[in-house]
Amino acid sequence: MYRWGDPSRAATLPDAVRGLLASVLDLPEPRPPVPVVALPPAALPGRCLRALEESGARVRTDDAARLSHAAGKSTVDLLRLRAGVAADAPDAVVEPADHEQVVAVLRACDANRIAVVAFGGGTSVVGGLRARRDGYAGLVALDLARLDRLLDLDPVSRTATFEAGVRAPRAEELLATRGFTLGHFPQSFEYATLGGFAATRSSGQASAGYGRFDQMVVGLRVATPTGTLHLGRAPHSAAGPDLRQLLLGSEGVFGIITEVTVQIRPTPAARRYLGWRFSDFATATEATRALAQDGPLPAVLRCSDEVETAVNAMGAGGDDSGGCLMITGLEGTEERVAATETALTDRLTGLGGRPLGPEPGRAWLRDRFAAPYLRDALLDAGVLVETVETAAFWSALPGTYPAVRDALATALAGRDTPALVWCHISHVYPSGASLYFTVLAAQAADPVAQWGAAKAAAGDAIAATGATISHHHGIGRDHLPWYGAEIGPQATAVLRGVKDVLDPHGVLNPGILLG
Amino acid sequence: MYRWGDPSRAATLPDAVRGLLASVLDLPEPRPPVPVVALPPAALPGRCLRALEESGARVRTDDAARLSHAAGKSTVDLLRLRAGVAADAPDAVVEPADHEQVVAVLRACDANRIAVVAFGGGTSVVGGLRARRDGYAGLVALDLARLDRLLDLDPVSRTATFEAGVRAPRAEELLATRGFTLGHFPQSFEYATLGGFAATRSSGQASAGYGRFDQMVVGLRVATPTGTLHLGRAPHSAAGPDLRQLLLGSEGVFGIITEVTVQIRPTPAARRYLGWRFSDFATATEATRALAQDGPLPAVLRCSDEVETAVNAMGAGGDDSGGCLMITGLEGTEERVAATETALTDRLTGLGGRPLGPEPGRAWLRDRFAAPYLRDALLDAGVLVETVETAAFWSALPGTYPAVRDALATALAGRDTPALVWCHISHVYPSGASLYFTVLAAQAADPVAQWGAAKAAAGDAIAATGATISHHHGIGRDHLPWYGAEIGPQATAVLRGVKDVLDPHGVLNPGILLG
Repeated sequence: MYRWGDPSRAATLPDAVRGLLASVLDLPEPRPPVPVVALPPAALPGRCLRALEESGARVRTDDAARLSHAAGKSTVDLLRLRAGVAADAPDAVVEPADHEQVVAVLRACDANRIAVVAFGGGTSVVGGLRARRDGYAGLVALDLARLDRLLDLDPVSRTATFEAGVRAPRAEELLATRGFTLGHFPQSFEYATLGGFAATRSSGQASAGYGRFDQMVVGLRVATPTGTLHLGRAPHSAAGPDLRQLLLGSEGVFGIITEVTVQIRPTPAARRYLGWRFSDFATATEATRALAQDGPLPAVLRCSDEVETAVNAMGAGGDDSGGCLMITGLEGTEERVAATETALTDRLTGLGGRPLGPEPGRAWLRDRFAAPYLRDALLDAGVLVETVETAAFWSALPGTYPAVRDALATALAGRDTPALVWCHISHVYPSGASLYFTVLAAQAADPVAQWGAAKAAAGDAIAATGATISHHHGIGRDHLPWYGAEIGPQATAVLRGVKDVLDPHGVLNPGILLG
Repeated sequence: MYRWGDPSRAATLPDAVRGLLASVLDLPEPRPPVPVVALPPAALPGRCLRALEESGARVRTDDAARLSHAAGKSTVDLLRLRAGVAADAPDAVVEPADHEQVVAVLRACDANRIAVVAFGGGTSVVGGLRARRDGYAGLVALDLARLDRLLDLDPVSRTATFEAGVRAPRAEELLATRGFTLGHFPQSFEYATLGGFAATRSSGQASAGYGRFDQMVVGLRVATPTGTLHLGRAPHSAAGPDLRQLLLGSEGVFGIITEVTVQIRPTPAARRYLGWRFSDFATATEATRALAQDGPLPAVLRCSDEVETAVNAMGAGGDDSGGCLMITGLEGTEERVAATETALTDRLTGLGGRPLGPEPGRAWLRDRFAAPYLRDALLDAGVLVETVETAAFWSALPGTYPAVRDALATALAGRDTPALVWCHISHVYPSGASLYFTVLAAQAADPVAQWGAAKAAAGDAIAATGATISHHHGIGRDHLPWYGAEIGPQATAVLRGVKDVLDPHGVLNPGILLG
């Protein structure tokens, strides 16, 4: 539980990489996890357990269940568990089987002042699973894994309604049998759920072509302690505010999303992923902006800075010709992909790009869900590794990029050793783009505190340059220090007002999003 | 004030059309407006006027000002004024010059319990200007016309920030000098304001290419009685709910939008509008869906049913070859438009379309803002003329279309004469489309009641077939009978909760949207 995913797929660091890291970063001794994680005693009174059981949902209080819901997957989450600390473990795990049982669970929690933390794939990296429990009878994880059905597929409107606990690979599998895809591939793809995507405004790696998850959502069904919301009557509507957009990104504090209706697309017949080299990140960024604003726009468009490009080249065995790597992924009909490739090649070569052919794209596709496995191996080796992401308007991006990079580098540099920081543009829009930073440093004696200081510096740099504190990870607890200032006191009051209506006793995800 | 727009552009009905309508619809005697409209006495106490004046805003109580803010532009609004009734006229018109003055006006209204109706271009067709005044010290129209500046243009991010009172043609003019366009051309284009577009979720005729107005909005500044909201930190963000989408479509009940930041685009170098004929509306609808889902997607895509096609052909002088007319408008670079035209021609001919060349597109472009002028001439001639719009998923559309059409036709048919009802698909999305109905009938003795019955029948048909009560006109007062059921009691409670936070004394647009 303090590692990512499937144990059989655990990564090992090649000796050369380990040696290089050791020499560059001045690593401490290896830091394997402690063998036993201490669970706090389960605190939920018997009457609460009985009330939960009356909902019809399965209620588990065994250690394995509690431990597997004790934390998300941020580096800090893992570091805490690796140190044997599971202070945030819920007292029980509640597993409803359908929307009605979710409603009944929420009523029981509301009536008995039981705090509820919503649990989808458990992949939050912003402390989204660390709900507060003080002042409550106890804390339960509401695990939506049993809400795993495809409820409806409308091939004419190209929409599909899933229960919220369906994991992304299962959704793709169910859609593929009917010739469709959702096209949402975030790094958490293999474990995250559709409900989680909706609750946190997830963005997938093919967002340029398929859109952010919040743009794919056509409808939502949401259980709250005071009743059910059913939103999304038409493709688009002028019938008042778009309340789907109030629930998307609400991170479980207003209600539990139980059903998600999404736009689907035909499975692309052709996929062509190509690499491009640019002389430097500024030139590559301008080329990325050109595609985002005037096209042709690939389904996948990402662009690494010089350091990330060099690190990737090292991993791939040493094509160290410098500059910056751009990956473009075209998807669609054979004919459209071919036509777009021609136009794209014209455009990018005109913008200073040198075509690298399909190999960089192949390598990226192969490894695109592997980073979390690599992180575990790095943590074992005494490396502190984490990511930071943001988004800004194009005109602000040249200020945000060095400010965040330098803030991280400065905060994590050792006395005589640097921290390694690199970045790529991961999602693009006509008005701006997101930046995704990765940082490696030698673990200090207290790596949690070490990261806390670096994160604070990065968050302050993001805020100071006018960017958003999160483009696609969400707020959780980790981004709260910046969230209030980003949206302002009136917006904060609006969110609290909505909370008071839907969850008047505040049992949903206390401490998350609203602080 | 009971006519649309510029008096010098008033339309006259060709004798042939008048004769045809008279024979088909069995028209009554011509119905010119009464010469004098009666204004109720201005009721605002002196202390309220003084409080408003202290805001720094200009305050007008003259009859001309009150009368020009007495109603919107629905047929019912016009019928009432034509009958000499201006019961909804505000007691005063308040004209602030900037955001701070709007804030001060709202504070004065809040402190003195003065109801405020937000006034942009005054083009609401859903009773959006008929705020309630009972229980208030009086009612003032807050006219945003003096907030008329372009505050910022960021050519790199392609965004522009306008004050909310800027009218659409002025916005285009200001952008054109810098080589940009907004691309938002609703039928109200010539008079409506950017703030009004945002407050009502307007959709323009080129929405397939440029998006709905709510999709163009990058940022909003909103004055409320309790403070200011400033929303839109980044192109997209996962930092909580998207509160822009809570203010978009809020129709002035949460606050007054004072600034709008929008995505802009380069002025297209080439425009090519083409007509296509299909055998029938079902085939044309399928072709429209094919373009919306798989492209190539023109900037403008509209598709008339058989009756609308025949009526248009009559107006154009008689190309009565039957079937259904589709208009496609391509905009962009010369090269892209040419390539898209080739692909579009391939696609549409494969789907049963016969190319009609540029003439139908030219005719449509020429007349596209003329319909409101024609309505005045029809009302003079004793014709009842109005429009109804909705949107539905593609799979529901074949049910919604005949249901609404037949509801209108049945409700408005005379004893021996039909009502004329026609329709076009006006806006398309991958999951569905909007339907825009136009209806002509002989005016009854009480045309307001006559339309009320027809509107009720149409609204019920829309609701019964699962469509939305408004795709782009908004809720106002006219759509309230269906709005609550469409969004449900929980969503209604959420809206009231937000209202309580931002406008605790309920002075903003009482009776609008929230009933």
